[in-house]
Amino acid sequence: MKAVQVVGYHQNLVMADVPAPEVTGPFDVIVRIGGAGVCRTDLHILEGQWAEKSGVTLPYTIGHENAGWVQAVGSAVTNVAEGDKVIVHPLITCGLCRACRLGDDVHCEQNSFPGIDSAGGYSEYLKTSARSVVRLDDSLEPSDVAALADAGLTAYHAAAKAARKLRPGDRCVVIGAGGLGHIGIQVLKALTAAEIVVVDRNAEAVKLAETMGADHGVVADGGQVAEVLELTGGHGAETVIDFVGEGGATRDGVRMLRRAGDYHVVGYGENIDVPTIDIISTEINFIGNLVGSYSDLRELMVLAAQDRVRLHTVKYPLDRFQDALDDLDAGRVRGRAILVP
Amino acid sequence: MKAVQVVGYHQNLVMADVPAPEVTGPFDVIVRIGGAGVCRTDLHILEGQWAEKSGVTLPYTIGHENAGWVQAVGSAVTNVAEGDKVIVHPLITCGLCRACRLGDDVHCEQNSFPGIDSAGGYSEYLKTSARSVVRLDDSLEPSDVAALADAGLTAYHAAAKAARKLRPGDRCVVIGAGGLGHIGIQVLKALTAAEIVVVDRNAEAVKLAETMGADHGVVADGGQVAEVLELTGGHGAETVIDFVGEGGATRDGVRMLRRAGDYHVVGYGENIDVPTIDIISTEINFIGNLVGSYSDLRELMVLAAQDRVRLHTVKYPLDRFQDALDDLDAGRVRGRAILVP
Amino acid sequence: MKAVQVVGYHQNLVMADVPAPEVTGPFDVIVRIGGAGVCRTDLHILEGQWAEKSGVTLPYTIGHENAGWVQAVGSAVTNVAEGDKVIVHPLITCGLCRACRLGDDVHCEQNSFPGIDSAGGYSEYLKTSARSVVRLDDSLEPSDVAALADAGLTAYHAAAKAARKLRPGDRCVVIGAGGLGHIGIQVLKALTAAEIVVVDRNAEAVKLAETMGADHGVVADGGQVAEVLELTGGHGAETVIDFVGEGGATRDGVRMLRRAGDYHVVGYGENIDVPTIDIISTEINFIGNLVGSYSDLRELMVLAAQDRVRLHTVKYPLDRFQDALDDLDAGRVRGRAILVP
Amino acid sequence: MKAVQVVGYHQNLVMADVPAPEVTGPFDVIVRIGGAGVCRTDLHILEGQWAEKSGVTLPYTIGHENAGWVQAVGSAVTNVAEGDKVIVHPLITCGLCRACRLGDDVHCEQNSFPGIDSAGGYSEYLKTSARSVVRLDDSLEPSDVAALADAGLTAYHAAAKAARKLRPGDRCVVIGAGGLGHIGIQVLKALTAAEIVVVDRNAEAVKLAETMGADHGVVADGGQVAEVLELTGGHGAETVIDFVGEGGATRDGVRMLRRAGDYHVVGYGENIDVPTIDIISTEINFIGNLVGSYSDLRELMVLAAQDRVRLHTVKYPLDRFQDALDDLDAGRVRGRAILVP
Repeated sequence: MKAVQVVGYHQNLVMADVPAPEVTGPFDVIVRIGGAGVCRTDLHILEGQWAEKSGVTLPYTIGHENAGWVQAVGSAVTNVAEGDKVIVHPLITCGLCRACRLGDDVHCEQNSFPGIDSAGGYSEYLKTSARSVVRLDDSLEPSDVAALADAGLTAYHAAAKAARKLRPGDRCVVIGAGGLGHIGIQVLKALTAAEIVVVDRNAEAVKLAETMGADHGVVADGGQVAEVLELTGGHGAETVIDFVGEGGATRDGVRMLRRAGDYHVVGYGENIDVPTIDIISTEINFIGNLVGSYSDLRELMVLAAQDRVRLHTVKYPLDRFQDALDDLDAGRVRGRAILVP
Repeated sequence: MKAVQVVGYHQNLVMADVPAPEVTGPFDVIVRIGGAGVCRTDLHILEGQWAEKSGVTLPYTIGHENAGWVQAVGSAVTNVAEGDKVIVHPLITCGLCRACRLGDDVHCEQNSFPGIDSAGGYSEYLKTSARSVVRLDDSLEPSDVAALADAGLTAYHAAAKAARKLRPGDRCVVIGAGGLGHIGIQVLKALTAAEIVVVDRNAEAVKLAETMGADHGVVADGGQVAEVLELTGGHGAETVIDFVGEGGATRDGVRMLRRAGDYHVVGYGENIDVPTIDIISTEINFIGNLVGSYSDLRELMVLAAQDRVRLHTVKYPLDRFQDALDDLDAGRVRGRAILVP
Repeated sequence: MKAVQVVGYHQNLVMADVPAPEVTGPFDVIVRIGGAGVCRTDLHILEGQWAEKSGVTLPYTIGHENAGWVQAVGSAVTNVAEGDKVIVHPLITCGLCRACRLGDDVHCEQNSFPGIDSAGGYSEYLKTSARSVVRLDDSLEPSDVAALADAGLTAYHAAAKAARKLRPGDRCVVIGAGGLGHIGIQVLKALTAAEIVVVDRNAEAVKLAETMGADHGVVADGGQVAEVLELTGGHGAETVIDFVGEGGATRDGVRMLRRAGDYHVVGYGENIDVPTIDIISTEINFIGNLVGSYSDLRELMVLAAQDRVRLHTVKYPLDRFQDALDDLDAGRVRGRAILVP
Repeated sequence: MKAVQVVGYHQNLVMADVPAPEVTGPFDVIVRIGGAGVCRTDLHILEGQWAEKSGVTLPYTIGHENAGWVQAVGSAVTNVAEGDKVIVHPLITCGLCRACRLGDDVHCEQNSFPGIDSAGGYSEYLKTSARSVVRLDDSLEPSDVAALADAGLTAYHAAAKAARKLRPGDRCVVIGAGGLGHIGIQVLKALTAAEIVVVDRNAEAVKLAETMGADHGVVADGGQVAEVLELTGGHGAETVIDFVGEGGATRDGVRMLRRAGDYHVVGYGENIDVPTIDIISTEINFIGNLVGSYSDLRELMVLAAQDRVRLHTVKYPLDRFQDALDDLDAGRVRGRAILVP
């Protein structure tokens, strides 16, 4: 089958002809790819940033945001059948360790991550596990939702966790109105009645966020902390979800937070660097957020089927993978680029 | 009445004769002091560290860890009566703001803090509020429990919050085997079956902590991170409660934490300074902890009455206040110094 | 002032001229009534159903769903000022007992209930407490929201409690599409993405509920259990909120519930009568719901100000109180009857 | 191998020679039995009470409380290895359905129940699944803990769930001081500081319960409701755990419950039959409890290894199965009867 592979770092990806994956284990699921999200992480992989961490052997096929149709299943698979339309959770988890048994499978002690440490979805077929596939509603198409499999799932996880504590009258600041921020705003809108304040340096992005459900938009032009404090009666917001995590976002974000508030860390780059006396005297919390669990993905697909979460996508045939990556790198993609068969 | 007052910063406290407080408001409660804890914060007040923050006008009476007997009550007081034995919550709260109505009165928008920003308990009588007094069990004496009013309450609050998530088989690292650490260990022991690992630089303190319920003691001599990782099967602990917060405690403490773990900040001094990528890739949380609520104090008094929480105290007559402060400053107090009538 | 009073059971109410209430205690608040809800409970009071339970002495003024403007405040009131527009929580609570301190003031050990056990709001002025008044947003009018003070608050309390456990993909059955049911549906819609299935005997009411946010309407004509099971893939719903509680509603409702589901009891009349073996083998819960807390009322007023919760009202001048009661009794009121000045 | 089988209802069990189970699926685990609990349910099976519900075909081997050593494992098993000492969770669950993925595997949509609906552990070997085996601490012996696999796990589940809401100063009434009650008391003692009040008709059992951690013992001789109310200051207890569920236990138990309290249903027999008006006016909850999850069993084994939960057992060689059943039926077993190889 056709597969787009990393053959060396700081080199372009290469289309290769490789054997299609086959069912070898009882829980294997082979997915015929209907859409594979092109993600900034893919650019970072090519720059070698993940080489050591993933320990992957080149060449290998990348692509970790996948959806498609079930092509074949192992002998023990009961949750999907050939022909089913599915989205693929980015991790393959063991189902037996402490974390998996508690439903917190993201912290599985033996997980693997196709597209990062093994063959991914820039190809015709992908091998995954019964534990990683969520059936899609008839109304959803693989190529439309593929990018929700990782980036969208991370935003869902953070926003849904935050929503569990937000009550009417509370405010939630969303820092960063990019791809994750847009999903986060839509999820907050679906799950809470909290007021949503979006903060971004880009006035266009702020404006777009307001059309997606943000109640207030704040352009981060230097006065953003003061503006958020004014919007929140001087108290600050009960919750901040920071999808940026660099360029001073955390320093400002903490100042937007109310006493006893939660600061959700999602974006990364800089350090959280806060005096312990400030943490205890205001009794604030910093909450880490990784990608969502399998159950989170199932829930996100419900919101997608209800049309409460939408993602703008630009589709490229698999053969045009280089154009997709170039467009992403050059900032020419509005929404997410998706490779389709 | 006699009252020990701050008359100037960087000067000794002075015993003065001042008018006894009187009931003027409907919820006022006058407490005849049975014990007033002598706290390191009192030394800091004399050094002027709180001058600006509290905005207090000199001279004023200090002492913020108080217990005694109700002497008089305002017209609207229904929860205590003259003669009742009580411990005094350190804050006077409004009962009407959002935080108070949610039971989270520590974040009261209009609180005052006797002993810090108004007259405290180094004296014969203290004026507080019906909202701040907890009746004591017959078995407890004010001079024995006074020091639980602030330092002990802070330790209780953090340990009880942590305990709500700890399950059998989990491990809780307690950093710091001093006064707060001892209370914390006893509270964890009373409320959970988690294994308690205590870490301190002082081998004597570690040994003492083991007699108070710690399952494992680790002397922080450079190998403490490795030792905790070994004790936890290489995973780290589900929870760390950091009663130190300075001298590198947080840097080490974070390395002792398991994926998805909670790091409770109680002690303060240095900064939490952690890369956001580490926070998200392990999905850890930093949880701020201030003093406990009124309900926390009620619960702590239950544990004290059950003899599950004990505190070693050294008593000084009020007139010998200078000896108590000198002994505390010189490290000569084992447990807590208490001024008694 | 004018006040409508109960002068005897099984007699009509009588308009009387009584002294206006005055501030006598520090937390007293006098409210000039802008709207007083006419509730089925008022009919029950006249039938003597509450005589023994409330222990009230006749004559007295009824009316327990009140909103208006602050006319005067006691010396210790800080949360509202003369002229403020407010809704009145139905209970006056002490603020000092265990329940009040935990934010669960509905279970106050010393509460009173104006309109039931003391003078209520079918009058020009009402005496309540600082702990019972919630300031209204400028956009809201007392006569429009008065009926949310008790009936609406009860529905909010149950729906918001249920919402905390509902996740996308879950189903919530609402039994009863009357006044409480309508509020409940709007609250669920605002706070969750769960699918809402409304069940009522009245086809018209079901149709109306669908316009208010219900995703599915089921007419209870005998096949309702089967229909709900079909809508839920044979599993039953994760949550049932029963606003009826009589006429066999609970027997049917339990059969609509999924394993591990929650059955919220709000309406009353019949018994919950279920074999313990059924409760344990399916591990279901029955959750009691009383009126909401002060914080619940604050939150509900946020939803009202956001126009997410609306109530249809029919207004009657206070003098026409008898028409309002007669119309209610005869089923001629669409939505809620409100007495206005 | 030897296996004790049901050959007909209302007949004695029969020792047969049957083929030993073999690994056929990837997650199969064969356990060499070290102890098999003899449970009252086994008597009920022989009486035919489970015939229709389980749909099992005779003859079959009973025994659903099992522990032993791993004899063989399937190709996909990673959590245990040959020779490991294990206890066996009573259910075999799929790991793929909604409930399993949330960690709530007891509600698995495709579970099976060896000893009830397929071959159980009154035999030399048992076939179970990797998802059902918990490794035992070196200090524990299979024959000592086998009876914790079902009865003990149920008690743990209910007590641990209750403990999550109990705070110091709260009271928990335990109705029934038999096998489950004893486990429940020990679990409550390990996980909370709540006061434990045990209620039983048998004065000896009450006395024994007091030695196991109950703070107060109440003999149910007619005055038990009054006695509990007196012990709880007239309020009733925050929590009741009812291990009896018949003979009027629920009627009395509800009267022992405080406003806003939780009534845990564990024992069964009679109906919960309570007016909805009582449920809503006191806002109480009825909480169903089935057997614990896999994670519950892991936690219970931690408490057993810590010697916080102990069970008295009487051991019988497998050949003497009839004596064990006869002794159980005649009330001659103190603690639990266990069949050993």
